[in-house]
Amino acid sequence: MAVDGPPIVRVGLLGAGTVGGGVWRILADHAAAIEARLGATLAVTRVAVRDRNRPREVPLPEAVLTEDPMAVVEADDVDLVVEVMGGLEPAGTLIRRALELGKPVVTANKELIAHDGPALTARARAAGVDLGFEAAVAGGIPIIRPLRESLAGDRVTRVVGILNGTTNFILTRMTEDGEDFAAVLADAQAAGYAEADPSADVDGHDAAAKTAILATLAFDVAVHADDVYREGIRDVSAGDLRVADRLGYVIKLIGVANVVDGRVGVRVHPAMLPSEHPLASVRGVFNAVYVEAEEAGPLMFYGQGAGASPTGSAVVGDVIDAARGLVHTSVRPSDLRLAAADLRAIEELRTQYCVRLEVDDRPGVLAEVARAFGEHDVSIAQVWQDGSADGAELVLVTHRSREADLRATVDALDRVDAVRRVAGLIRVESEAFVA
Amino acid sequence: MAVDGPPIVRVGLLGAGTVGGGVWRILADHAAAIEARLGATLAVTRVAVRDRNRPREVPLPEAVLTEDPMAVVEADDVDLVVEVMGGLEPAGTLIRRALELGKPVVTANKELIAHDGPALTARARAAGVDLGFEAAVAGGIPIIRPLRESLAGDRVTRVVGILNGTTNFILTRMTEDGEDFAAVLADAQAAGYAEADPSADVDGHDAAAKTAILATLAFDVAVHADDVYREGIRDVSAGDLRVADRLGYVIKLIGVANVVDGRVGVRVHPAMLPSEHPLASVRGVFNAVYVEAEEAGPLMFYGQGAGASPTGSAVVGDVIDAARGLVHTSVRPSDLRLAAADLRAIEELRTQYCVRLEVDDRPGVLAEVARAFGEHDVSIAQVWQDGSADGAELVLVTHRSREADLRATVDALDRVDAVRRVAGLIRVESEAFVA
Repeated sequence: MAVDGPPIVRVGLLGAGTVGGGVWRILADHAAAIEARLGATLAVTRVAVRDRNRPREVPLPEAVLTEDPMAVVEADDVDLVVEVMGGLEPAGTLIRRALELGKPVVTANKELIAHDGPALTARARAAGVDLGFEAAVAGGIPIIRPLRESLAGDRVTRVVGILNGTTNFILTRMTEDGEDFAAVLADAQAAGYAEADPSADVDGHDAAAKTAILATLAFDVAVHADDVYREGIRDVSAGDLRVADRLGYVIKLIGVANVVDGRVGVRVHPAMLPSEHPLASVRGVFNAVYVEAEEAGPLMFYGQGAGASPTGSAVVGDVIDAARGLVHTSVRPSDLRLAAADLRAIEELRTQYCVRLEVDDRPGVLAEVARAFGEHDVSIAQVWQDGSADGAELVLVTHRSREADLRATVDALDRVDAVRRVAGLIRVESEAFVA
Repeated sequence: MAVDGPPIVRVGLLGAGTVGGGVWRILADHAAAIEARLGATLAVTRVAVRDRNRPREVPLPEAVLTEDPMAVVEADDVDLVVEVMGGLEPAGTLIRRALELGKPVVTANKELIAHDGPALTARARAAGVDLGFEAAVAGGIPIIRPLRESLAGDRVTRVVGILNGTTNFILTRMTEDGEDFAAVLADAQAAGYAEADPSADVDGHDAAAKTAILATLAFDVAVHADDVYREGIRDVSAGDLRVADRLGYVIKLIGVANVVDGRVGVRVHPAMLPSEHPLASVRGVFNAVYVEAEEAGPLMFYGQGAGASPTGSAVVGDVIDAARGLVHTSVRPSDLRLAAADLRAIEELRTQYCVRLEVDDRPGVLAEVARAFGEHDVSIAQVWQDGSADGAELVLVTHRSREADLRATVDALDRVDAVRRVAGLIRVESEAFVA
């Protein structure tokens, strides 16, 4: 902070890619409103870039650029550090150094927060400064303040999120246009919605990182991205979508975090949601976080989970908050220590399966199939069969059962003579609480 | 605040009805978690009730009860005041006195905040204490922190809310079960969802108060409940719902606040929303607030807008925030002064109408009707006609036009020979920005 007059908070920006460029532009475009709300001026004094000679969309003045990010963190004329480089390193080292110097940090780095959030938060608290990471959870959707502050007197029991725009775009297109996974993925890659290597999105890594952060925020326990059980959307087929539609469901890739008897379950997988569920209407690249709280009941927060402007908006909201802390020396809200999470294994999950089988079209098949379910204590809620020229399709929806029993049932089905193939297998997430 | 050890913040509760009882219970049920998060104990030391001998659902200790609310406000053993009596007076006088004494106030009183919010906020700021009213806007839905803090670096351009659970319940039932307004209203009254005198809900007064508060929060200007243009749902008919369904829309009572060229428009009326709009899937007693921000894009906040537990959860969230201010002497975020709003009259609104006419079933009718539109510079986007035994129904959807021209058109239609009756008239709110 500096001098007389309206105080100035000097910002050092680490990274000037898509999000960094967005942050720079928003700070410039909304400067007057921000100054009015903050009672101080925000000035970006230094920007660390990988290559200072690379042309960029947002014109940055030559004088602020450097290729040495540590020099930005340590500069005397930087009061507050914004990290939008991404990746675990050197971002982690840079943030730790900034906190050590007593400089508040705002980051959009979900990978880092999902891996090291609790430890970084503890360091920020020890240093008495802010660590803001609203942009790391669901881009432009305000979720951290609602969870940490608005619901401070409540108890969150479950969080279900559509946390990845690329996979939601793909599933929406598959559902609405009847296209198959590979075709839509190729389109999404051409349109820039999906990466050349789409694994982070389609295999659920990105959603798992966000689920870990949400679980940590919702339950005050330290959950790591690697703790999250994970299945992606590569195996979702046209047949699954057809069956879901016929049953009145839509298929979404969801991240779920819940607490049962004090134990935390965290998982990412495709699931059938009832079409009247609020999450079912979240289409295209939009994200949403559905929260169940004991007192407030069900809540949902909806918006854009990615992109320069939405993510930039969230970063700048955190920057203003952190700057306020510098200008007004306010005290950080939460002094809570995070306990280690007592994690529940996926095998202990109680859920419903929708199983789609290709079977011989002859008498007695249903009895053989039903026996496999019964022998594993899995009861059947719904069943239907469609005959065709060479065989039939048998669709069964189970009652809620233990994941381990469901898996054993599916294994057993593979050995039933009349079953030619387990053609589809997808969990059903009904609106009621799922333990 | 008092003594050594973990600090105690002493709460005085004004009112112990539905919401007050909920607040008392939540403070008791979640005491341990609240203490951990706040670093202080919250103790309700005094409760003002209308009649101390009345039996109540939540058992309050005899010793804390009084029938003198001012005594609670002024008591030395009350650090923080929670007002959940409702109504303009004596609530307003009590809150002003509490602020004068330097005591933070939390209120769920939407009527008072919609009438006097800016002045009360100014008093709180002058006194250097909190005035929390999250519960006054949309019950349990966190909306104030997202608008004021998360979007502090952004610019909100439009807010559209489903802000009244009773009317949304009625419209949902009319839509899904085909019942008419009077029948559903009677059911809602029997079930306790609607008051014996339903005017506050069905005529849009409640939604107008909330729209005024949202406009004030979103645009940093002082908007009063009386500034809001208001139409209720009494005139929504089965015919309107049938036409909406055929066009791919649902009818909702919405509160809209937007800014065009620096001028604020605020209105409450039934409107047709495209069925794929996120607000269209908000069913039953649920509420939602849809926000369009320049950078973050569209956002939606969904949840329960009323009820003891959701409203109580919001009140307690604010109490914890205000208590934190007392314990940690933090500084209030916003030092912003509210300008008077430059309001746009409803006649200046640019919107689309869906007009349903009962007409003679003979050649030339459409030409006569179309002429009335053309003469008032209103162009027609869509038209269809259904013949029947004795006459026909003609449905027209206009392009976006000035409200004043649309009204003049409808007046002129009444004078067209072939038009027997203007049977339905409802605005269409498409997803695109509506000025």
